[in-house]
Amino acid sequence: MGDWFHIINLAGVAVCAISGTLMAYQKRMDGFGVVVLASVTAIGGGTLRDMVLDLPVFWVQNTDYLYITLLAAFVTIMWLRLSPRFPYHYLLIADAFGLALFNVVGLEKALIVDAPMSVAIAMGTITGVFGGLLRDVICREVPLVLNGELYAITCIVGGLGYAIAYYAGLSSQICMVIALVITILMRLGAMRWHWQLPVFHSDPPKS
Amino acid sequence: MGDWFHIINLAGVAVCAISGTLMAYQKRMDGFGVVVLASVTAIGGGTLRDMVLDLPVFWVQNTDYLYITLLAAFVTIMWLRLSPRFPYHYLLIADAFGLALFNVVGLEKALIVDAPMSVAIAMGTITGVFGGLLRDVICREVPLVLNGELYAITCIVGGLGYAIAYYAGLSSQICMVIALVITILMRLGAMRWHWQLPVFHSDPPKS
Amino acid sequence: MGDWFHIINLAGVAVCAISGTLMAYQKRMDGFGVVVLASVTAIGGGTLRDMVLDLPVFWVQNTDYLYITLLAAFVTIMWLRLSPRFPYHYLLIADAFGLALFNVVGLEKALIVDAPMSVAIAMGTITGVFGGLLRDVICREVPLVLNGELYAITCIVGGLGYAIAYYAGLSSQICMVIALVITILMRLGAMRWHWQLPVFHSDPPKS
Repeated sequence: MGDWFHIINLAGVAVCAISGTLMAYQKRMDGFGVVVLASVTAIGGGTLRDMVLDLPVFWVQNTDYLYITLLAAFVTIMWLRLSPRFPYHYLLIADAFGLALFNVVGLEKALIVDAPMSVAIAMGTITGVFGGLLRDVICREVPLVLNGELYAITCIVGGLGYAIAYYAGLSSQICMVIALVITILMRLGAMRWHWQLPVFHSDPPKS
Repeated sequence: MGDWFHIINLAGVAVCAISGTLMAYQKRMDGFGVVVLASVTAIGGGTLRDMVLDLPVFWVQNTDYLYITLLAAFVTIMWLRLSPRFPYHYLLIADAFGLALFNVVGLEKALIVDAPMSVAIAMGTITGVFGGLLRDVICREVPLVLNGELYAITCIVGGLGYAIAYYAGLSSQICMVIALVITILMRLGAMRWHWQLPVFHSDPPKS
Repeated sequence: MGDWFHIINLAGVAVCAISGTLMAYQKRMDGFGVVVLASVTAIGGGTLRDMVLDLPVFWVQNTDYLYITLLAAFVTIMWLRLSPRFPYHYLLIADAFGLALFNVVGLEKALIVDAPMSVAIAMGTITGVFGGLLRDVICREVPLVLNGELYAITCIVGGLGYAIAYYAGLSSQICMVIALVITILMRLGAMRWHWQLPVFHSDPPKS
């Protein structure tokens, strides 16, 4: 696993730590809540991925990830003190970038241990989605992953793009860029134009 | 692990994917929420079981489980479009069958790796209960497991039935059928007659 | 790992099972909810720790922990039937002791497998915090860990105390006592005097 991979993973952790800190701000938490929420969002998805793949957990192997989490939270707090009008919109954008970066990390890590492509796509999705899901569940928000715009599906489509590029024989770096660009553009597009996929054409009966 | 085991596990996954899809319908989610909720409900419990037992996670080893989850969700969506009066009752029944099937799978898998019987019973209960618990927590519902009818305890009693049959020297298949029947009958009975076990005879003081 | 370690771990499990049972009482659950909630609170944190460290899960290796959980829940139920005025205050105190005991167990277990000190401190915090977090999320309460008094941070400071004593060459037992005392005193002090750390000096804009 080369430098590319490490940089994308660090960037994903930093961006998700920022999104956790912004959620803590939204929820008027204090400094201690920030540490918990930033950590859960930043390392929750990768922790689950590594446990499912039975790999050493990434932040146990390399403590850089713990320090970057704390650093990103600290910088975000300083920023919010200087410029308190950091609105909800930035939380969504940070979340979208974290989703795409982590999707690529999960895909790559699964393929390195020779998992089948369908498992690799699931791992990308888990890595991308799970930290934010924990963040929302702990804060008792409706999880973004369920709120009616395409979200987890952007990881799956990004993963399919990766798979096509991979089977076409492109290098790992190109595959990663393709998956990254597909995921981030789809997610930003979904936020901008509220893409949805209604599948139920009727309301459920009252229970 | 023979065909029996595999069939019961596939059936449990399919039934729990249906229960996740029905919950998504109840909550008026779109197609993307369905994929997430069906997957979490169908493979969440088994994933935790395999991680705790330090076994390879079942759907990483055999990708059939991912495909059956998507297939079950798809069929349920089609059914709901034809027949929208799929009421809440069916969610509870699907959940009860998933509980019993997964209980048996958890028991069996723990005993195969020579875990003590008390651990095996706990694994059956975790496999049966955890996916539905995640489903309810993510949807911000009061978890079925806590809602005042016997639920997790049906897995424990089914597990005790398995243990008695096992120590009596009966074959693995017979033990599985006994645990399955006990769990499903107890759970359906609890739903029908609202079996409860009040242990606190007084209300807590106001805090 | 000697007797000390085992006793502290058993005490932590028992105290957290009590705190889960008290929460079930607060929420007017029945006997089945008590079993689930006591177990989740008592063994949830340690289960996550062992999975992250890729160690055998403690209660799979030693079933004493399952029995002490059930015993502690049973004794608490009996106590509440005799003396129903067990107020909310006791839940907080049980939770504080569980936090400190589990912090020490997590630190110790991580250091035994030669994890770096920063990982050990994170493991202490996870062990201390995660069971109670699950308890609160399942019960749809605002998690104590986020409610605005120092909580997770007491584990981190206790862990730093352990680290200083450890690098000063003190024996493992002395390090454990130091971390235990720091964590419990800080947490009780935070409850008594409502210590907080406001880091956001402005309110977030309306979204």
